[in-house]
Amino acid sequence: MPAITLLTDFGLRDGYVAAMKGVILGIAPNVTVVNITHEVPPQDIASAAFILATTYPYFPSDTIHVAVVDPGVGTGRRAILLDTPCGRFLAPDNGILSHVLAGLSPARGAGSGIAVPQAPLPVGSRAYVVQNRSLFLPGVSQTFHGRDIFAPVAARLALGLPAHEVGPEAGEVAAFPVPVPDRLPNGGVLGTVLHVDAFGNLITNLRQEDLPAGPLRVRMGGRVIAGLSASYQEGGEILAIIGSSGRLEIAARNANAAKTLTQARGAEVVVEQV
Amino acid sequence: MPAITLLTDFGLRDGYVAAMKGVILGIAPNVTVVNITHEVPPQDIASAAFILATTYPYFPSDTIHVAVVDPGVGTGRRAILLDTPCGRFLAPDNGILSHVLAGLSPARGAGSGIAVPQAPLPVGSRAYVVQNRSLFLPGVSQTFHGRDIFAPVAARLALGLPAHEVGPEAGEVAAFPVPVPDRLPNGGVLGTVLHVDAFGNLITNLRQEDLPAGPLRVRMGGRVIAGLSASYQEGGEILAIIGSSGRLEIAARNANAAKTLTQARGAEVVVEQV
Amino acid sequence: MPAITLLTDFGLRDGYVAAMKGVILGIAPNVTVVNITHEVPPQDIASAAFILATTYPYFPSDTIHVAVVDPGVGTGRRAILLDTPCGRFLAPDNGILSHVLAGLSPARGAGSGIAVPQAPLPVGSRAYVVQNRSLFLPGVSQTFHGRDIFAPVAARLALGLPAHEVGPEAGEVAAFPVPVPDRLPNGGVLGTVLHVDAFGNLITNLRQEDLPAGPLRVRMGGRVIAGLSASYQEGGEILAIIGSSGRLEIAARNANAAKTLTQARGAEVVVEQV
Repeated sequence: MPAITLLTDFGLRDGYVAAMKGVILGIAPNVTVVNITHEVPPQDIASAAFILATTYPYFPSDTIHVAVVDPGVGTGRRAILLDTPCGRFLAPDNGILSHVLAGLSPARGAGSGIAVPQAPLPVGSRAYVVQNRSLFLPGVSQTFHGRDIFAPVAARLALGLPAHEVGPEAGEVAAFPVPVPDRLPNGGVLGTVLHVDAFGNLITNLRQEDLPAGPLRVRMGGRVIAGLSASYQEGGEILAIIGSSGRLEIAARNANAAKTLTQARGAEVVVEQV
Repeated sequence: MPAITLLTDFGLRDGYVAAMKGVILGIAPNVTVVNITHEVPPQDIASAAFILATTYPYFPSDTIHVAVVDPGVGTGRRAILLDTPCGRFLAPDNGILSHVLAGLSPARGAGSGIAVPQAPLPVGSRAYVVQNRSLFLPGVSQTFHGRDIFAPVAARLALGLPAHEVGPEAGEVAAFPVPVPDRLPNGGVLGTVLHVDAFGNLITNLRQEDLPAGPLRVRMGGRVIAGLSASYQEGGEILAIIGSSGRLEIAARNANAAKTLTQARGAEVVVEQV
Repeated sequence: MPAITLLTDFGLRDGYVAAMKGVILGIAPNVTVVNITHEVPPQDIASAAFILATTYPYFPSDTIHVAVVDPGVGTGRRAILLDTPCGRFLAPDNGILSHVLAGLSPARGAGSGIAVPQAPLPVGSRAYVVQNRSLFLPGVSQTFHGRDIFAPVAARLALGLPAHEVGPEAGEVAAFPVPVPDRLPNGGVLGTVLHVDAFGNLITNLRQEDLPAGPLRVRMGGRVIAGLSASYQEGGEILAIIGSSGRLEIAARNANAAKTLTQARGAEVVVEQV
């Protein structure tokens, strides 16, 4: 049976996540449920989008990923099932799938002259609007669709419900623009911080293959870093390294780079030949 | 096999919760264990009681709920198994089952003229004192009955142990009074905040059916809120909404209502016709 | 099938732990994975070592314990599989197994005249260097061996891979000295704080059997505590009690002893007859 993952901003202090799991277990008692995280900063859709896109590839391709950072719950925003050969995604239609879509679609970033994060085009991917009320809990609340809609639909998908039974095809799915690296006139490359992790590592949109050849220097926030490190223990106080998602990270040895450099998501980084 | 849930104030920084799960797995290797939460504020029995009562109804009715917020561990306080048709509850006899009992017993709140949270009378509910030492770990510690008593008993119940084998019937179970709404002379209703969740939402004891008909205003802490919102995005900076437990909540749009209003558990709220 | 536990300093805010679980599920879909903790203070190997050693004995003896607090990831530090009759341990070779080894080996502390924490000598324990690349994820990253090496190897061990297939025998495994109690000339005993838990309890290396007989007093940080308590509710503001790991703890009633006493790991405690 496929597994279900959960990613929310509900925190772990209340019973909200457990209520979702109770609903899932009541429908699909033998399913494995895995937390991705529940500590997304409240309503931080961009952060959730990055974490989802960098984590789901490590799960089996039939996994059902439920991602609920949902400030618009109870408004007219749609609920979406994105069904791909790499995973199934249940989420509000608010941009939380942006990085997944950017990775899945080779059209994004085309024309920039730079390789962008992407997987092979998923043949047969489809998006559906989740609106078949017979799949929901009775008496859907105004404020907790994670429990009342997403959890029971995920459980039924795990039991074999065909995707198209959740509702009609969705057409366009909401996505915010994912920043793409820019080639600089001097042969260097200009990247952007996509995510700051809990250690304060500044994770950029630059992949190994985006970087110029030869000896490099990295510039961010007035600092210049000489070369790439091969571990967090090498290099100076501030170091640059290809991190676990295959992207250039700016890290601080035994410290928090985001705080040390007072940099955040959206900050620019330049990599150029020495 | 029934699932087991765990609710404690142990936090997730140490190995305490994991030790409980290890004990359970050693006895019942195939049981599913779900965390409700382990971040109850230390020794906050009232908070644990509310979270338990609003979460357990979403689990299958044979689930074994282990709730250990236990400042009296090692003293004479009893350990209880409350066996109901809606779930089985293993806990110290210190009031942590108060909201569960208030919801299960229609006698509570009777005579107030107000509908109170309650489920149909559970025919056949019984409480037992957990004192059959042959079910415990050998060498029970003074300080960690969650691991040494509650975990192994829960695992054995999951394997089919009849409830009455844990010990003799318990008679009265400890409970603190759960505040009941009051009807006001002007036709309005006076409620009480039962719980503040991690978002700062102030969750009251007022249910939809307790509220007067027609256009309403809500008063709390010197603020007046006009009408109920249908989502957290509607209404003013401070809004009133029927939340996911079916109760009136006071929330702040994109903010923490408890902090904004400097209100806490026990605060009063009035709802009246305009 | 054996269970797998995970203990890291990755926190739960990002998807790092979930990526490890995804890798495990992809290889061993039916394995049970239990978090010990992921909130070890960043790079605090000593804290991780204590939590691991006091938690693993509550798991079945075929459990695979993955402990990744790994500041040296990407450097030359080895990865180790310690295979014992009490459990299997996968970890970087950086001292994180120190308390496990101290407990398993009766040679430690020999000659001090004091009983030290130890289990019977595990006949047939062996340590291996994890270096068989065919067991790893393809394209091992520089920064995340938890996901790329430890997770897939753990999953394969759970499926029955013999320990010796991970690589050659390791010889000596890295360990820091675990403090051993000292007998004092007055018949008392001098102990050391091994760990401060999330409640602020100061957990020492003194076991019940290390303590002098008769009425006792406990001294720490200028305070004198009269006698041992039988629960956290007994005794004065600051109390001494045999805690859940069988060791003497200094605790504060309804408060944080480490903060109240401004004491930390490594602090000394004296227990002597009155």
